[in-house]
Amino acid sequence: MYANFPATVPLIEEAHASERVKLVFQDIKATKGIDFIPAFWRVLANQPDLLESTWLQLKRVMHPEAMGRTSQLDARTREIIAVAVSATNGCAYCVNSHSAALKKLGVDIATLSEIMSIVALFNSTNALAEGFQIEPDVRPNF
Amino acid sequence: MYANFPATVPLIEEAHASERVKLVFQDIKATKGIDFIPAFWRVLANQPDLLESTWLQLKRVMHPEAMGRTSQLDARTREIIAVAVSATNGCAYCVNSHSAALKKLGVDIATLSEIMSIVALFNSTNALAEGFQIEPDVRPNF
Amino acid sequence: MYANFPATVPLIEEAHASERVKLVFQDIKATKGIDFIPAFWRVLANQPDLLESTWLQLKRVMHPEAMGRTSQLDARTREIIAVAVSATNGCAYCVNSHSAALKKLGVDIATLSEIMSIVALFNSTNALAEGFQIEPDVRPNF
Amino acid sequence: MYANFPATVPLIEEAHASERVKLVFQDIKATKGIDFIPAFWRVLANQPDLLESTWLQLKRVMHPEAMGRTSQLDARTREIIAVAVSATNGCAYCVNSHSAALKKLGVDIATLSEIMSIVALFNSTNALAEGFQIEPDVRPNF
Amino acid sequence: MYANFPATVPLIEEAHASERVKLVFQDIKATKGIDFIPAFWRVLANQPDLLESTWLQLKRVMHPEAMGRTSQLDARTREIIAVAVSATNGCAYCVNSHSAALKKLGVDIATLSEIMSIVALFNSTNALAEGFQIEPDVRPNF
Amino acid sequence: MYANFPATVPLIEEAHASERVKLVFQDIKATKGIDFIPAFWRVLANQPDLLESTWLQLKRVMHPEAMGRTSQLDARTREIIAVAVSATNGCAYCVNSHSAALKKLGVDIATLSEIMSIVALFNSTNALAEGFQIEPDVRPNF
Repeated sequence: MYANFPATVPLIEEAHASERVKLVFQDIKATKGIDFIPAFWRVLANQPDLLESTWLQLKRVMHPEAMGRTSQLDARTREIIAVAVSATNGCAYCVNSHSAALKKLGVDIATLSEIMSIVALFNSTNALAEGFQIEPDVRPNF
Repeated sequence: MYANFPATVPLIEEAHASERVKLVFQDIKATKGIDFIPAFWRVLANQPDLLESTWLQLKRVMHPEAMGRTSQLDARTREIIAVAVSATNGCAYCVNSHSAALKKLGVDIATLSEIMSIVALFNSTNALAEGFQIEPDVRPNF
Repeated sequence: MYANFPATVPLIEEAHASERVKLVFQDIKATKGIDFIPAFWRVLANQPDLLESTWLQLKRVMHPEAMGRTSQLDARTREIIAVAVSATNGCAYCVNSHSAALKKLGVDIATLSEIMSIVALFNSTNALAEGFQIEPDVRPNF
Repeated sequence: MYANFPATVPLIEEAHASERVKLVFQDIKATKGIDFIPAFWRVLANQPDLLESTWLQLKRVMHPEAMGRTSQLDARTREIIAVAVSATNGCAYCVNSHSAALKKLGVDIATLSEIMSIVALFNSTNALAEGFQIEPDVRPNF
Repeated sequence: MYANFPATVPLIEEAHASERVKLVFQDIKATKGIDFIPAFWRVLANQPDLLESTWLQLKRVMHPEAMGRTSQLDARTREIIAVAVSATNGCAYCVNSHSAALKKLGVDIATLSEIMSIVALFNSTNALAEGFQIEPDVRPNF
Repeated sequence: MYANFPATVPLIEEAHASERVKLVFQDIKATKGIDFIPAFWRVLANQPDLLESTWLQLKRVMHPEAMGRTSQLDARTREIIAVAVSATNGCAYCVNSHSAALKKLGVDIATLSEIMSIVALFNSTNALAEGFQIEPDVRPNF
């Protein structure tokens, strides 16, 4: 743990949380197989409604098997998308937490480096396409 | 094809390109298995140096097998990262071309929708983490 | 105060500032009802011209009443826009200072959380609209 | 209507939609008081699950009264946040639809211009704070 | 001219503008040496106050000589910064107008391509630095 | 040096690096005229391939003279573009390192402030152009 400063709102302690919040916290730990509540969820817990709806949404998208849903992507690919978006947005909290999740899924430095080299490449070609105002070739025909 | 407007610089025609540019164009078509030169490369071809170095970089990252390199990720995962970055940046040309590449790799609407729902989710949680200034829990220990 | 590091340029101390800078500093404190000069303005004060023009612009937009201008929005709504933009851009300094301004205007955690849930939602739907390349329905007819 | 091109996936027609999709479409029209289905929802309808969960989330956040929830913000303020985020991200579809929503709520050109001048100002000061690497003054004490 | 659609607000015609707006329009044409009013200023002209303050700010920063100010940068470098920011943000209107300004200043395709290759490179390295969460080496000591 | 935390991957020490990495490190120090290896390159050195290709690309673009290439831009202008992109993206590591590079090239606070005022201005006008959905006037005719 290396956080020196609180967020702009308090981090709710599990021990002092309402029953409603505790239930979500327990589901987070059980579903993710972790033994602490990440600061992200402790911050949202200030508004149980926001905590619940955000967790439900993340659980649906990132833990489909826990909700009886089928997925076309495996857990590693889903976390790769998460870290690619977070690196592109430059969100420190998010890059850290999704890199940690990848590590837990067995991703090594070589793979993380390959992911980042792809993220870097497309941030570069995106800028070229915008910088030269290149019009799309074709719409894909899904 | 639906482009109505040129880019801010001319699109180089393969037929009128220099030998150096033609070689890159042929490598692009052969490596990607396509029969036309996307506008992106025709724009870069105004500067053969930029065309060559960008193509080499993209070929290294996205077509490692064509360069005798090993990769920890398959072609579909690499294109998923590309489209996730492009959607996050809102680059129309790039979203179109990488969606088309995914389609060609056999990705269907259900899978594309799942990719986009993950991209959307993390653009949302990134904003929450930044909006509440949440400090990272731990650094992953790669 | 928790800043450990200076900005990339010195923070001008009010006590050692030129008369021209002091006048702006006093106007900032009087207009905003604060008793210290935020680091943002102390940094800009390295170039009195930049300090003056940025302050004038912010005063015009955010404190219209102090310039005899009418506004269609109240002070709270203006700060809400400020924090929404800052969270979307992921600007730490800005999120902190506009969250503090909202707190001073009486905004509580429930309201801040609601603001952030809206910011998060639209960062998410923006990514979906870009990721599927959805064309606008209609132009609003203002 | 001025869209010339489809999105990267088909737009589902209400007349040909499944019962599950039709129910969401009807709720969208009833809740928003509109008589057509915006392209955004017709695109998501390719995956009824994504349509339902996104609509539920937007309904919860943007139409709290329709879900028996209380809100600290009025409908106009919520749409102002939506357009501020969308303009900052440069999402054309989103800027159009939220500008149209503001127009419907009675917002005139003067107010829209004031909103945009605030959005512009903070995109500018965000860049200054990042460009000079200014450290936060204080954390707000919510 | 290739615009097919209006902006979300009307474009004010010079012939029908108020005297106050006409004065700004004339200053824009004289200062920039152009014979038409770009859509950007015609849009802002809906709010003469916003038009005036934005133009004054742009004139101060981009045409310092016209305001008796000295500048450390020449006009070409200033427009290069403008196009670099606009390409990074993916703002089509802005990329077009600043590319046109560079063309007018004598910049050729080779130079524009070099600018874009630098913009692309740093969008790429920015993503790497964020993706690996690299801590700064040192603060520059200005 | 003020970094308290490692990146998400180890920083490779020059003393313990492979011969291949050492060669790149020596080229970086020689080409840039610095006597330490910035954290950015020490991170990439976990994957010698990524280190080499990124350095080659940066050397090509930012040190053209070292590769026998001609450039239309001088070193100061190239670093100005780098810092403008980095400030727009809000990349702390990048803003720090490119500000330091500008300082080394003789740029003073007045010039850095002028650069930042241009970056800020165009982040502001970009938001206005997107917020009002302004259509381009003309394509520049390169």
